[in-house]
Amino acid sequence: MRPSGRATNEMRTVTIEPRFSRHAEGSCLIKCGDTHVICTASVDEKVPPFMRNSGLGWVTAEYGMLPRATHTRMRREAKNAQSGRTQEIQRLIGRSLRAGVDRVALGERQITVDCDVIQADGGTRCAAITGGWVALKLAVSQLMKSGLIITDPLVEPVSAVSCGIYAGQEVVDLDYPEDSDAGVDGNFILTGGKLVEVQMSAEGATFTRDQMNGLLDLAENATAQLREMQLAAVA
Amino acid sequence: MRPSGRATNEMRTVTIEPRFSRHAEGSCLIKCGDTHVICTASVDEKVPPFMRNSGLGWVTAEYGMLPRATHTRMRREAKNAQSGRTQEIQRLIGRSLRAGVDRVALGERQITVDCDVIQADGGTRCAAITGGWVALKLAVSQLMKSGLIITDPLVEPVSAVSCGIYAGQEVVDLDYPEDSDAGVDGNFILTGGKLVEVQMSAEGATFTRDQMNGLLDLAENATAQLREMQLAAVA
Amino acid sequence: MRPSGRATNEMRTVTIEPRFSRHAEGSCLIKCGDTHVICTASVDEKVPPFMRNSGLGWVTAEYGMLPRATHTRMRREAKNAQSGRTQEIQRLIGRSLRAGVDRVALGERQITVDCDVIQADGGTRCAAITGGWVALKLAVSQLMKSGLIITDPLVEPVSAVSCGIYAGQEVVDLDYPEDSDAGVDGNFILTGGKLVEVQMSAEGATFTRDQMNGLLDLAENATAQLREMQLAAVA
Amino acid sequence: MRPSGRATNEMRTVTIEPRFSRHAEGSCLIKCGDTHVICTASVDEKVPPFMRNSGLGWVTAEYGMLPRATHTRMRREAKNAQSGRTQEIQRLIGRSLRAGVDRVALGERQITVDCDVIQADGGTRCAAITGGWVALKLAVSQLMKSGLIITDPLVEPVSAVSCGIYAGQEVVDLDYPEDSDAGVDGNFILTGGKLVEVQMSAEGATFTRDQMNGLLDLAENATAQLREMQLAAVA
Amino acid sequence: MRPSGRATNEMRTVTIEPRFSRHAEGSCLIKCGDTHVICTASVDEKVPPFMRNSGLGWVTAEYGMLPRATHTRMRREAKNAQSGRTQEIQRLIGRSLRAGVDRVALGERQITVDCDVIQADGGTRCAAITGGWVALKLAVSQLMKSGLIITDPLVEPVSAVSCGIYAGQEVVDLDYPEDSDAGVDGNFILTGGKLVEVQMSAEGATFTRDQMNGLLDLAENATAQLREMQLAAVA
Amino acid sequence: MRPSGRATNEMRTVTIEPRFSRHAEGSCLIKCGDTHVICTASVDEKVPPFMRNSGLGWVTAEYGMLPRATHTRMRREAKNAQSGRTQEIQRLIGRSLRAGVDRVALGERQITVDCDVIQADGGTRCAAITGGWVALKLAVSQLMKSGLIITDPLVEPVSAVSCGIYAGQEVVDLDYPEDSDAGVDGNFILTGGKLVEVQMSAEGATFTRDQMNGLLDLAENATAQLREMQLAAVA
Repeated sequence: MRPSGRATNEMRTVTIEPRFSRHAEGSCLIKCGDTHVICTASVDEKVPPFMRNSGLGWVTAEYGMLPRATHTRMRREAKNAQSGRTQEIQRLIGRSLRAGVDRVALGERQITVDCDVIQADGGTRCAAITGGWVALKLAVSQLMKSGLIITDPLVEPVSAVSCGIYAGQEVVDLDYPEDSDAGVDGNFILTGGKLVEVQMSAEGATFTRDQMNGLLDLAENATAQLREMQLAAVA
Repeated sequence: MRPSGRATNEMRTVTIEPRFSRHAEGSCLIKCGDTHVICTASVDEKVPPFMRNSGLGWVTAEYGMLPRATHTRMRREAKNAQSGRTQEIQRLIGRSLRAGVDRVALGERQITVDCDVIQADGGTRCAAITGGWVALKLAVSQLMKSGLIITDPLVEPVSAVSCGIYAGQEVVDLDYPEDSDAGVDGNFILTGGKLVEVQMSAEGATFTRDQMNGLLDLAENATAQLREMQLAAVA
Repeated sequence: MRPSGRATNEMRTVTIEPRFSRHAEGSCLIKCGDTHVICTASVDEKVPPFMRNSGLGWVTAEYGMLPRATHTRMRREAKNAQSGRTQEIQRLIGRSLRAGVDRVALGERQITVDCDVIQADGGTRCAAITGGWVALKLAVSQLMKSGLIITDPLVEPVSAVSCGIYAGQEVVDLDYPEDSDAGVDGNFILTGGKLVEVQMSAEGATFTRDQMNGLLDLAENATAQLREMQLAAVA
Repeated sequence: MRPSGRATNEMRTVTIEPRFSRHAEGSCLIKCGDTHVICTASVDEKVPPFMRNSGLGWVTAEYGMLPRATHTRMRREAKNAQSGRTQEIQRLIGRSLRAGVDRVALGERQITVDCDVIQADGGTRCAAITGGWVALKLAVSQLMKSGLIITDPLVEPVSAVSCGIYAGQEVVDLDYPEDSDAGVDGNFILTGGKLVEVQMSAEGATFTRDQMNGLLDLAENATAQLREMQLAAVA
Repeated sequence: MRPSGRATNEMRTVTIEPRFSRHAEGSCLIKCGDTHVICTASVDEKVPPFMRNSGLGWVTAEYGMLPRATHTRMRREAKNAQSGRTQEIQRLIGRSLRAGVDRVALGERQITVDCDVIQADGGTRCAAITGGWVALKLAVSQLMKSGLIITDPLVEPVSAVSCGIYAGQEVVDLDYPEDSDAGVDGNFILTGGKLVEVQMSAEGATFTRDQMNGLLDLAENATAQLREMQLAAVA
Repeated sequence: MRPSGRATNEMRTVTIEPRFSRHAEGSCLIKCGDTHVICTASVDEKVPPFMRNSGLGWVTAEYGMLPRATHTRMRREAKNAQSGRTQEIQRLIGRSLRAGVDRVALGERQITVDCDVIQADGGTRCAAITGGWVALKLAVSQLMKSGLIITDPLVEPVSAVSCGIYAGQEVVDLDYPEDSDAGVDGNFILTGGKLVEVQMSAEGATFTRDQMNGLLDLAENATAQLREMQLAAVA
């Protein structure tokens, strides 16, 4: 029995409000239950030094939390002084989004996706990837409208969900009370029905290949639903 | 003629949404035109070392901006590595809010007010003070309900507005286009009709005592209006 | 009654020793009672990147204190790791000095004014501005002698004094014992009889417009005296 | 065809030299082909503040590289200023080793496992986990000999290997030339035949569940071999 | 022929102005030609953690330069972010001063000697040691007057001078033009006629034992003169 | 009587294993008793900005210790955040090695010598200089073989040894137990029989010129032996 009363394969209510920010080229506010994340995509016509004259584009991500997004207040972090956890998350977001980008079609420019959690209740990195793709797509659409990009470099949504083993059962989309208690949890990122990234981790525990396959089934099903919401948001 | 078409003594539309955050003891979302700030108040039963056993409470503030709250993306900042501008702003917010606090009545505890700008269009520090007082008041109300505080330490709202000289005219509540162009601008913080803080500054220019008195008239009038909205939000 | 026995409108003894440093293009040692500040102006023919090819000059300031300038020893600070207080002070010094500079006449070069407090007894930032202008003027005079500048970009001295409400009375040029006890204090920077910057602040208190006008009267009178001393020092 | 001529399921030659360091409580030098890592385990009878009086032990890890362990020289890193990559690796090492520790049996003390790469040719984090377990076990054995620990908290070795898809084929234990070219790669950590951690990542690519199962088969086989070498080294 | 016209064994004019600072327990301004250093000694009744309950005192030093003490302006430095050169100098000053301290007689307290160069023309670290001893002695004298110390822990002055090989000749007390050109230079610290520290260094050159003995002769003679001035200053 | 039973003029067993690292242009592992240091020389065809277009080469050094090279574990350090001790050591290594380099013959390129202590038992900085020269020489030989350098810029080895006064006796090559107890110790760097650098220091003690001469005799003898081993290693 899950604390929220959800079925094992039942996600929380997800809403995506596109064009949330006035200034960013692309943006949305994504809510997965009580987890709320502002995602913005900022286009920069300059790429980092190591990419210059490659003809290829670049997508990178940053992740932050307001100090009181959580139950107890946390210290602010900064670029260049982020915790290991924060860096790991933003590297994951960037890598996942790049998996869905045709970097030749994007052209030699950089898009930075900022994912700022304004309220947290578990699953923030997955919400950030799912919402981040929406922001990215809206920024790219604007570049296409203005003729700076000809071929769409973003064909399929990149969608992410957490799954884990809670109270001996495989469950999807863990909220904070489940996340705190799960012996095994993982993040699953898919695009077009295929895997992009799998991260499973069992602090002080172990898991079998059968359990792993059960989690993959849940993830495939959930990300298919997220994909529809992402496409609706950018339509 | 102001770019927004407002009269010289006309503020932008202000709305205050109290209890915006699920986790914080007090919170609001304040919107002054296109300037949007999330304010949260976090209660900590411990005070900083220099206040221990004084019997007095403490109120402090932190100020931040999402990277894409502005027209162009800005780098993230962190506690202990903030720009001079950010530090100056959060010192001002903390000092202003403390002017309206009876620190004996508050008792030996600390309240941290976080003001995070999610969209900026001028006047962010004043919006942060005005909204910060609302968050602070709601947190204190909760402490009073739970019996931890007996006498209300926050009698009068602390309200803030910017005024400046734009195109030769004294105007209230400058938005970003005005702020960028004004030769003289200032921030005026009042409580109960009296002055708490005045900061006027003229980069590459000067101003007369007559002009200064004109700006004070505008500020007295505008903060009286803000006071009513603050009281309504915490009612 | 002031601790020093001074009248409410009486400044401390001020002396300015010009050309104190052998290496700097302009310099002085300013003493306001027991507050002693070394001011040097360093000319750099390069401007910061954001000013290049603008044809405009730039004046900036840094402020420091020897560790034992104060009653108890303080830690050393550094460029890029300064306290909020130090940054606020040096931003104020720079902004105030720039108010008296014709940046077109200065030409595309930068002058850095370093103000280092070797002994502190209240009012260090005001002494730094008053002495900093002398150092700046001497550096500019040298540039004019060498023909690098044709029109004098510094016509009127920029002068600064602190005023506050001590024991219920409006007083000028607060020393450390007064400063520690004053409920309201402020810094007033003027040039050519007009205001450049006003900073009034009341930690845990408030003040009326009448009191504010009383402090402005004191400041106008004191800065007129400082102006004469500055002109004598650079003659 | 692999650049080294190895079969797809063939690891590089692995040697483990236990007790490599004179000072550490446990240590080894592990060589996986041209990847050489010094692992030391340092016992500290104090635990971090958040664990005090819990009765539980703690195992943590740090990871470093000599500047010229790589083809081109890299900058030195430090505690508190490590790159995201380094932090991610050392978090993985610590988490993996803890999966094999009975923290009650360990008792309230901390063991820090330092893994320093003196020569790198791919697979350094997996070598660090495999060698780190040997260092950890030797340190624990010494604590058991001296009677400080009664029940062995480390029953089964924790073993790690990288697997990936190189030139369309699933291969085990990637060396640097393979690692640079692989579209998909992952790290697999097992203990007692069960999974502890799985990290698969496809930068700019995707993979199927069939491919994922192929890699898991390779990893199960390779870690079984590593387990025997670890047990021999600590015998 | 030396640029200054001095004989090879001739020091610059040295003056020591004791009790230069109003706040410090001991202080002086030492001038060695155009090298001017403010030295202050600050007494702290607490010792660093590693010395607690040892019954022994501690003397430490910090060294700084005003940004425009030199021909061209230098960046400010800070505690914890000092250049290698600065740290090397302040470690030398502290070590040298401790060589002349009876740490049992000093008792469990710490004295920090700050040496701040307000104008530099070579030999700043030696001036800092010589002046630092004077500040230290004056602080100790005050502790003896107040009865906190019974036996004088500072019997003999610690004196320092630089010597080097300039234009093939052994010379004493190098000024900046000599220092920039010398192939070999060194610092010699003596107390009571004996050596405390010798640092000789030849960037891109070498020197013989005969030359080394010549420099030692110069140093013995010069420090004997400095000793008399130090004793006069503290009389 | 020395703790190790060695005669006063007897060094520990020294071995030098050249070409220890697969990737570096030059390298060795030097062992002086239980002090083990990996030295690598990395060639960079770019020089630092201040040397550009000078036609001169540059040699610099970095020094590090694995956290558990010592009896108790030490924190990791980083470039730009190293302790004063570490910076002092690496400045010494760089300066000493440069004394033996013909910078014109080297040509406009930089060689960085990294000295990483993997096990420490006293005398690490001297082992680093002696071994560092071997790594440097091997890197230069490779540059000569490839025709990038014509004239050998490294004619004579630079060799270093520590000497000190232990239990009243002058002894050579102090190990850790001696080093901890010695009242006076020093480092002596020689090349071609001449002195390059002498650093003698007496914390809380003094020494005579006779004692200093005794230590120089020991150092001359020991470095002559080291020179032979260095030449053999690079043959």
